[in-house]
Amino acid sequence: MPKLDFDIITLGHGSGGTLTSQLLEAGVFKLFGNDLLNKKHDGAIFNISGKVAMSTDSYVVSPIFFPGGNIGDLAINGTVNDLAMCGATAKYLSLGFVLEEGLKMEEFWQILNTIKFSCEEANVQIITGDTKVVEKGKGDKIFINTTGIGEVHPHANIDIDNVKVGDKIILSGPLARHGITIMSVRQGLEFETSITSDTRPLHKIIVELIGQFGAGIHFLRDPTRGGLATLLNEVARDARLGVDISQKNIPVEEEVYGACEMLGFDPLYVANEGLFVSVVDPSIAADYLRLLKKWEHGAMASVIGEVVMEHPRQVILNSNIGGRRVVNMLAGEQLPRIC
Amino acid sequence: MPKLDFDIITLGHGSGGTLTSQLLEAGVFKLFGNDLLNKKHDGAIFNISGKVAMSTDSYVVSPIFFPGGNIGDLAINGTVNDLAMCGATAKYLSLGFVLEEGLKMEEFWQILNTIKFSCEEANVQIITGDTKVVEKGKGDKIFINTTGIGEVHPHANIDIDNVKVGDKIILSGPLARHGITIMSVRQGLEFETSITSDTRPLHKIIVELIGQFGAGIHFLRDPTRGGLATLLNEVARDARLGVDISQKNIPVEEEVYGACEMLGFDPLYVANEGLFVSVVDPSIAADYLRLLKKWEHGAMASVIGEVVMEHPRQVILNSNIGGRRVVNMLAGEQLPRIC
Repeated sequence: MPKLDFDIITLGHGSGGTLTSQLLEAGVFKLFGNDLLNKKHDGAIFNISGKVAMSTDSYVVSPIFFPGGNIGDLAINGTVNDLAMCGATAKYLSLGFVLEEGLKMEEFWQILNTIKFSCEEANVQIITGDTKVVEKGKGDKIFINTTGIGEVHPHANIDIDNVKVGDKIILSGPLARHGITIMSVRQGLEFETSITSDTRPLHKIIVELIGQFGAGIHFLRDPTRGGLATLLNEVARDARLGVDISQKNIPVEEEVYGACEMLGFDPLYVANEGLFVSVVDPSIAADYLRLLKKWEHGAMASVIGEVVMEHPRQVILNSNIGGRRVVNMLAGEQLPRIC
Repeated sequence: MPKLDFDIITLGHGSGGTLTSQLLEAGVFKLFGNDLLNKKHDGAIFNISGKVAMSTDSYVVSPIFFPGGNIGDLAINGTVNDLAMCGATAKYLSLGFVLEEGLKMEEFWQILNTIKFSCEEANVQIITGDTKVVEKGKGDKIFINTTGIGEVHPHANIDIDNVKVGDKIILSGPLARHGITIMSVRQGLEFETSITSDTRPLHKIIVELIGQFGAGIHFLRDPTRGGLATLLNEVARDARLGVDISQKNIPVEEEVYGACEMLGFDPLYVANEGLFVSVVDPSIAADYLRLLKKWEHGAMASVIGEVVMEHPRQVILNSNIGGRRVVNMLAGEQLPRIC
C-alpha cells in the first residue's frame, strides 16, 4: 500500500483538489497507468472502427468482500461479461467510484489491486475515471460504476429477434453460487460452507464459441440479478415466444442446493456472476454443448430447454416429479445488493 | 408521471425482476426509447469509426434540486462537456442510477424528464443503462453515473503536451455561479439571491471554435470541482510550465462576489458547470476571444493570463492591488458534493 497522509477516505479526497490528486497519483495512476489514462484529461481519446458494443453497470454489493471475490472483480468481470453477451471483447473501461467518508484506505487499496488483476485477466484497459466522496451515512463504503467499450466479433449476430421456435437453451454451469455466497456471509454462515462466488470473466469462451458457431448463436445473456428465471422470462417476453425448461437438466451443486433449502431460496431466482445462457440453433446444439463442456468451468453445462410456439411470453418448468408449472419473473426483492 | 404501483422507490425496483421491469418500461424506455436502447440487451451495439473520446462522471450533488437545474441536467451536461473538452461531440451516453430506497417516484420522474430534455438539447442518445437500489440510509436519494462516447472533431488537437510558453489563457464567462447556488440552498439563502447554477452544454460553441481555430487551440478544460485555481494548477503541473493570471481580468458577477464574501469563499476555488478555459496560441487569441464573446454566454469572456517559462508548475496571481501571490490547488474540501 502506498504511503498516504490518511488511513481512511475523507471528504477532501473527493474535492478535486490536492487530496484527490494525491490519491489518484499513489493509487489509480500507479496501478492502472497506460498511455490513454496517463493523459489525465477529462476523457480519453482513441481510434476505433467497426461494430462496437457499450455496456454499463453500477456495483453496490454488500458486503464488499466475500468468499471468492470482492466488489472490485465483480465490477470488472460484470461489465466484461455484459459486453461478451453482446458478442464483444471488452477493450476499454471507465471506472467511477462513489466512496463513503471513513472507508479504510487499506480496503480501498485491496479493491484497487483486485481491479488491476481482473483487468489483466480480461485484457482490458481502464482509460478514464472519476472519484467522488459522500459523507458518512450517505453511502455504503464503496459503489463502483464501470462502463465498457468492446469490439464485436465479426461473426456475431446476437439479437433477441433471431430467437426462433425450436432453438435450444443451454446453461453453462451450476446455478446460484454467487447469491448463496453473499447470503451466507450476511447470515454469518460463510465458515460452514465451502461455497464461493462464481465471479469470472467469460470473454474467452464466448470468443471461442462465436468463432466456431457464428450466427448459429441467436442470443446470449448472463443470469445475474433475478437469476435464471428472470432471464428466461425476458427472453420469452422480448422474443414473444414460449420457453420450456426441464428441472432435471438444470445443474445445481449439492452443497448450494442444501444452502438454498436452508436459507429458503429457489435457485432459479438466485444471482450468478460467472454463468451464461445461450439460445442456439438446434442444428448446432450438440456440438456447442460439446465445446462448452471442454471449457474449464463448463463440465456441468447442459441443454435445459427450448423455445416453443405454445404459451408465448411464458416460461414453463417440467418438474422432477412430472408436473408442469409457470415460472414467473422475480417479484419484489429476494436478495438486495447482490451485485 | 406514469401510473406505478408505488409512489416511492423500493428495494424491489433494484431486483432486476418485475418491479425493475415495470419502472424501466414506464419511465426509462418510454422517455428515452431509441433503436439501440429498445433492444434491452446487456449492452448496445453500434457502428463507429475514427477518433473517439470516452469520459465518465458520477454525480452525487446535494441537494438534488437547486435553482437553475437538478442532478439530471448536471449529469448529462457534465459528461457532454467533458467530451467537448476533448474536442469531441457527445453521441452516445450510458446512464447508471444508484437510488436510495424511499426516493419519491415524483422526484425521480422529474429528474428523468430533465435528463430527456438535456439529451435533446445536446443531441445525444442514452443507449444503455443500469438501475440499482440501496437500503434507506445507505445512499442519498440518487446518484447518477453517465459515461459518454463522442466523435472527435477532425481539426481538434487538444493535448496538454501542446501547451507552450506564450499561450494565452481564456476564461469563457463569470466564475462561481454553480458552487454559490448549491451553497446558498444548503444555507437556506436561495431566496435572498437570484443566483442560479450555470449548468449548460458547451458542445456547440466548442465545435464552432475548433472549426475555426483547429490546432491553434492547445488545451481545453472546464473548471468544475476545485474551481479555476485547481484547473490552472493542473495545467501548470502537467505542462511543466508556469501560469500567470491577472485578478482584474477574471470576471465575477457582483451578486456572486457578494455571496462569496458573505459565505467566506474565494471564487477561484468555487465550482462552475457551464464555463471552460482555453489555452490557445497567442496568434489566434484576439480572434478567438471575439468569436467567444458572440456566444450567448460569452459576453464576459476574457483573456485572464498566459503560460510562462518562469516558476514552472506554479500559478501566480497578479492581484488588483499590485501584489503577486502563489495560487495553490484546492487543499482539503471546500464544498462537498457540489456535482
